[in-house]
Amino acid sequence: MNFSSDTSAPAHPSVLDAMARVNSGIEASYGADKVTARLRARLADVFETDDFDFWMTASGTASNALALSCFCPPIGSVLCHSEAHIQMDERGAVEFFTGGGRLQLLPGAGAKIDYNAFADYLGEVNPSFVHGTPPAALSLTNLTECGMAYTPEEVARFAARAKNGRLAVHMDGARFGNALIHTGATPAEMSWKAGVDVLTLGLTKTGAAGCEVILLFGAAKAKAGELRARAKRAGHMPPKMRFLAAQAEAMLEGGLWLKLAAHANAMAAKLAGVFAERGVELAYDVQGNEVFVRLEQYDLNQLQEDAVIFYADWPGGLSRFVCSWATTEADVEGVRAALGKPTRI
Amino acid sequence: MNFSSDTSAPAHPSVLDAMARVNSGIEASYGADKVTARLRARLADVFETDDFDFWMTASGTASNALALSCFCPPIGSVLCHSEAHIQMDERGAVEFFTGGGRLQLLPGAGAKIDYNAFADYLGEVNPSFVHGTPPAALSLTNLTECGMAYTPEEVARFAARAKNGRLAVHMDGARFGNALIHTGATPAEMSWKAGVDVLTLGLTKTGAAGCEVILLFGAAKAKAGELRARAKRAGHMPPKMRFLAAQAEAMLEGGLWLKLAAHANAMAAKLAGVFAERGVELAYDVQGNEVFVRLEQYDLNQLQEDAVIFYADWPGGLSRFVCSWATTEADVEGVRAALGKPTRI
Amino acid sequence: MNFSSDTSAPAHPSVLDAMARVNSGIEASYGADKVTARLRARLADVFETDDFDFWMTASGTASNALALSCFCPPIGSVLCHSEAHIQMDERGAVEFFTGGGRLQLLPGAGAKIDYNAFADYLGEVNPSFVHGTPPAALSLTNLTECGMAYTPEEVARFAARAKNGRLAVHMDGARFGNALIHTGATPAEMSWKAGVDVLTLGLTKTGAAGCEVILLFGAAKAKAGELRARAKRAGHMPPKMRFLAAQAEAMLEGGLWLKLAAHANAMAAKLAGVFAERGVELAYDVQGNEVFVRLEQYDLNQLQEDAVIFYADWPGGLSRFVCSWATTEADVEGVRAALGKPTRI
Amino acid sequence: MNFSSDTSAPAHPSVLDAMARVNSGIEASYGADKVTARLRARLADVFETDDFDFWMTASGTASNALALSCFCPPIGSVLCHSEAHIQMDERGAVEFFTGGGRLQLLPGAGAKIDYNAFADYLGEVNPSFVHGTPPAALSLTNLTECGMAYTPEEVARFAARAKNGRLAVHMDGARFGNALIHTGATPAEMSWKAGVDVLTLGLTKTGAAGCEVILLFGAAKAKAGELRARAKRAGHMPPKMRFLAAQAEAMLEGGLWLKLAAHANAMAAKLAGVFAERGVELAYDVQGNEVFVRLEQYDLNQLQEDAVIFYADWPGGLSRFVCSWATTEADVEGVRAALGKPTRI
Repeated sequence: MNFSSDTSAPAHPSVLDAMARVNSGIEASYGADKVTARLRARLADVFETDDFDFWMTASGTASNALALSCFCPPIGSVLCHSEAHIQMDERGAVEFFTGGGRLQLLPGAGAKIDYNAFADYLGEVNPSFVHGTPPAALSLTNLTECGMAYTPEEVARFAARAKNGRLAVHMDGARFGNALIHTGATPAEMSWKAGVDVLTLGLTKTGAAGCEVILLFGAAKAKAGELRARAKRAGHMPPKMRFLAAQAEAMLEGGLWLKLAAHANAMAAKLAGVFAERGVELAYDVQGNEVFVRLEQYDLNQLQEDAVIFYADWPGGLSRFVCSWATTEADVEGVRAALGKPTRI
Repeated sequence: MNFSSDTSAPAHPSVLDAMARVNSGIEASYGADKVTARLRARLADVFETDDFDFWMTASGTASNALALSCFCPPIGSVLCHSEAHIQMDERGAVEFFTGGGRLQLLPGAGAKIDYNAFADYLGEVNPSFVHGTPPAALSLTNLTECGMAYTPEEVARFAARAKNGRLAVHMDGARFGNALIHTGATPAEMSWKAGVDVLTLGLTKTGAAGCEVILLFGAAKAKAGELRARAKRAGHMPPKMRFLAAQAEAMLEGGLWLKLAAHANAMAAKLAGVFAERGVELAYDVQGNEVFVRLEQYDLNQLQEDAVIFYADWPGGLSRFVCSWATTEADVEGVRAALGKPTRI
Repeated sequence: MNFSSDTSAPAHPSVLDAMARVNSGIEASYGADKVTARLRARLADVFETDDFDFWMTASGTASNALALSCFCPPIGSVLCHSEAHIQMDERGAVEFFTGGGRLQLLPGAGAKIDYNAFADYLGEVNPSFVHGTPPAALSLTNLTECGMAYTPEEVARFAARAKNGRLAVHMDGARFGNALIHTGATPAEMSWKAGVDVLTLGLTKTGAAGCEVILLFGAAKAKAGELRARAKRAGHMPPKMRFLAAQAEAMLEGGLWLKLAAHANAMAAKLAGVFAERGVELAYDVQGNEVFVRLEQYDLNQLQEDAVIFYADWPGGLSRFVCSWATTEADVEGVRAALGKPTRI
Repeated sequence: MNFSSDTSAPAHPSVLDAMARVNSGIEASYGADKVTARLRARLADVFETDDFDFWMTASGTASNALALSCFCPPIGSVLCHSEAHIQMDERGAVEFFTGGGRLQLLPGAGAKIDYNAFADYLGEVNPSFVHGTPPAALSLTNLTECGMAYTPEEVARFAARAKNGRLAVHMDGARFGNALIHTGATPAEMSWKAGVDVLTLGLTKTGAAGCEVILLFGAAKAKAGELRARAKRAGHMPPKMRFLAAQAEAMLEGGLWLKLAAHANAMAAKLAGVFAERGVELAYDVQGNEVFVRLEQYDLNQLQEDAVIFYADWPGGLSRFVCSWATTEADVEGVRAALGKPTRI
């Protein structure tokens, strides 16, 4: 019963199988291989467009920072939520990759940026004030760090305002699949159709061994050469790229990624039900594969006694439970049992 | 018959098997997993010491630049050969990771740094000249970009002089195994015993899918925390580190890496024999898995006619042939046949 | 009647005289001149210690960022107030000079950091959490951006806690003289005696043409070589340093800087009196040379009608008036007259 | 008799006078003052064009690095001579300002880039080779570090080839005036008419206290906003810009800068004559204000005995003598006397 993180789960077996399957024969290095070429076609299907370019890395931090470094100059800033992963958990990667750009933090409940705060900020900032650090990009995280989902309509509203202020729109989609499942949106609706210029399509938390695709849509394709150069320079152009491409291909094949995300979401919903039933307060609406609760000490003890593993000291006195493709009904039932068992005396 | 690069070869099947084998159950992320712990013990055996720390990335560029960024400040420089991989083929990664440090280039035949040029440089440089960019580290590549090997004695000589000038000593061991096979040195003799502070132990070219271990020896261990922080920041701390560790483990298990390197070296020696026999001039002594020749147009045509693939326009009018663990005797015989066949009329 | 900024004032004539006075004969470049040597002795007197080193630039942004770059690595952060000059008005200079370090913002009234918020932050941050960006330095601004002063006791309390957490303590003293006048503290009491490691001693706003001294106290002297190297690299080691040194010398001579700061403070106090008398709300206690008020539209019109110049749209609906060494009683009387005159009909 | 450097000379008195003259009244800060506005008109006259923009710093290192950072991205390189000041004497400033760009060194006699080496390099480089660091700019130094001048025709030839390869053309004109005097070219002919996009117009060595103007010509004007933002961020936008502008104005007024440069050149020519007469070997043709000679130990002693100061251990066993606006005929005669005096016995 381990709910510590979806990054702790193994990869789905199909992913390892696919890697083994491409492991024969000589292949051109650095992304010129035929597996990568095949992946392009698959991505075009999934995103319903040919008007894109892409690159892959094995790390969400790398993909976010590479993506943003193509749109935010060293003299600019990236608008993001104050609890965004790029702010809290990526060791200043954006600052590093942009050459000293800055994150400009915005508030909002459930780690969703408050639209008015965003619009007010843009309304007040003076891009030609030479002493300031004007915004060059907006980064939305979907799911957010609190497990909440932006709808395509919400994304579109942010994107329209961003573009009006000449900002590029980035989406950190480390849990993109989970957001799609919750909202019922298609990949296209949640990305380029809503105005997203560059998407970090996370597959690792969903079930890959380590693969995060950066997609450049529409006019943002002009950055493809720079993206590759920056990737190379940052050590994110490993020679045997076929092993990254094979992971993505396996995940997208037959919609596996969405099935896995749906499963994780379903387990989270069930877990939320268990908590609700037991009277435990949910901190946020459960819209993906994460459940945040405020546990009494008593319940905390009950869970730890039964070896239920989770993030017990999330900021704000919360506990975080993450479900993954590998979470089982039995895991959830284990939580129910732990919470419901008679107190030891 | 593809001699284009050892990076174009597939991974050895044991590597993929090992990745599949560790793919079960929940594991702590970011290097706190038990596969990584096990690897530590294996590395201690291989390098005959417990006095080390390490990190892994999937890219040689990343490993070199991360390693050097812990030893060269932005206001300093790294001494390396003018044809070193960090200079020619890594898109300014060292400059990026060091925050604007510089490579200071030294000459030498076969891409081995000329010792006297190195010693003269150190003798003349004034580290307190505030307008200059004083050296902070020496980077040796073994095998060099021309396929030549430094012996442990040569490394030790460079290292002693470097330390005398307070420089850290880095070894880019993208083809470390090949160098060991040629010289008969042990991993320890070629690294910390010779004065190397930080080694990039390349396993990808030798047979992994994508795994390069950075080893910090002795006093350099003090940089381990900084190394991890820089790795995280650069996106080189992927969550499911077990898949990197499993690769290294499989390669080191039973000395597989050295067997594969020995095979590649043997194939290169045989290929060199074929060229010699045919009267083709070898540009450098073949000391590893690479063969550089000066081909007449006639021979070039003969090879291309038979679909022998290699790097035909290496700088200096040379052609490069690289053997890997996957190169077969038949591949080499194919070259012999191509060169020896009667001219088409 | 121009209260727009103390940076808009001319230099005190003594400063230009001093520059002209050193303008004869050959002098060693880059700080090895005899004027700079003489300045060292003067600084030792003013700060009552020989245990320091220093450098000069013509810019407060440069001095702050250079100072902080010696204490905050790229993987770390600088704690400062959310309205600090380094955050609001220096175009990401700290991020640039540190190679991608980050500012971590703290709240507090009057742009003074709230001590408890600071202590809580340090109490909660985990410096070994590899995903975070741990603080390496604390930057206090004295006077703050709202014209408030930290007392030496307050500085000492911050510094003690900072050191306990292994943070270096920086003071942005763009208006250091004004803070000294208000608190009655000596330069030593407000800096090294209170635990400040590195001080940006601003003289430009006080009356120089362009001169800000970076002082490294005590153990921080170990950074002197790095500071010079970074200054050179950033173009802050102009050849004819005598002209910077002459400015500082002139300002410190006979306590001129403190006399000028005292005058500016006195003018601000008088101006505050004018506003108080008129019933205009002061936003902050006037502790230096700046006055922040909340003006009714009526008063705003009255002032602008009489060509009183000031910063009319300071954030938060405030207006800012800055007095300098060059502000006259007549200027202040002009404000009184403008506010008091009968309404035009 | 001090020939150590033109940076050791005082400023011309007119420069200090001009600074004192603008030192009255309130002026807008950060370049919005009326002295800076007036300078624009003066520069337009001098360069015979309105199609330019400009910024000023107090340092040649800053001006060069700022200029180049607007044209060379972090993933690119700047072509320059292997002995260029940006390579030898600016502590990696270009690497810093570009965020990790690189200098790519070219050979050539007298520190003038060999045109063929340049053209060959461009002919061979593959800008789309993702592993390389393709050139984005060419930097010519005029006068070179060996005191040689490029003619406008030579500059034009370089610029044409550079543009053909989509490189921006930068001129480090630390001794621009001296080069104009030698070649007889006008400022326009030596800059934009020859294809220079961005010029560092050095005035400090010529006679200012500290002022180097960056001029963006023609299409390069598009970088003006970025240049200012980068200048601010680097601390090169000091508040009281009028003191920089006043220096430039004084130097350009009535062609003072050219008169001073002509004097320095004339002194150097005379000094060269003294050496020639005495049989001392000139290392380079004297085309500006610098004289490089190969001194016998005997002559070295003679000079040092008479307290003639110069750079006695220039690389390559040379001695460097620099004349400035302040060098007198008596100084030169002093050298003649020192060399010619009977040996002490």
